[in-house]
Amino acid sequence: MPSVQQKLNLTFTALSDPTRRAILARLSRGEATVQELAKPFAISAPAITKHLKVLEKAGLISRSREAQWRPCRIEASALKEVSDWVSEYRQFWEESFDRLDAYLKTMTQKKGTKNGRKK
Amino acid sequence: MPSVQQKLNLTFTALSDPTRRAILARLSRGEATVQELAKPFAISAPAITKHLKVLEKAGLISRSREAQWRPCRIEASALKEVSDWVSEYRQFWEESFDRLDAYLKTMTQKKGTKNGRKK
Repeated sequence: MPSVQQKLNLTFTALSDPTRRAILARLSRGEATVQELAKPFAISAPAITKHLKVLEKAGLISRSREAQWRPCRIEASALKEVSDWVSEYRQFWEESFDRLDAYLKTMTQKKGTKNGRKK
Repeated sequence: MPSVQQKLNLTFTALSDPTRRAILARLSRGEATVQELAKPFAISAPAITKHLKVLEKAGLISRSREAQWRPCRIEASALKEVSDWVSEYRQFWEESFDRLDAYLKTMTQKKGTKNGRKK
């Protein structure tokens, strides 16, 4: 059983490729086979299969073992782990927005005073 | 200027390494120099510098140009982009939890009926 750190290594590596992110975006609209996934991309079915293996290893998708076409589907838990990880840093961008907001308020007040319209 | 996709490629690649994630976790507690960052890790200052370059290229940290020690600090915007990207998939884990919740409710009801305590 891989540790949380090992899982995050695999997940972030899988997400670092634009084709793999596009595959996830496609699967967010519903299950799809390799052939269906290969269509919009200018790459071969074997190349798509390679990308699917990386996504599957990271737990971002699963493939049906039953049907002959083995449709792929998105798996929520690995994406939730990314969300949990990044939300630990939420304070940083919220602080940045607070600072920007305070700055814009100061600018608006200054402008108001300059134009003789105190807000 | 890199596109959103190119930025995400760099950001996810930077985040795929556990040492780089640990550096970010350390910087979330405040600015630090290369020497301070190298201390808790069993790796050399030049190795840390390499990791910092990857983080800096991804826009996850910035380094002061003024001070001789060039302290590093966390940058919010690249982390916010990860959060924005992953939140597009929020429905998937929320749906999973809803399904689990519904399943648990059914189980509790069944158990209640079995024991003659209809809930």
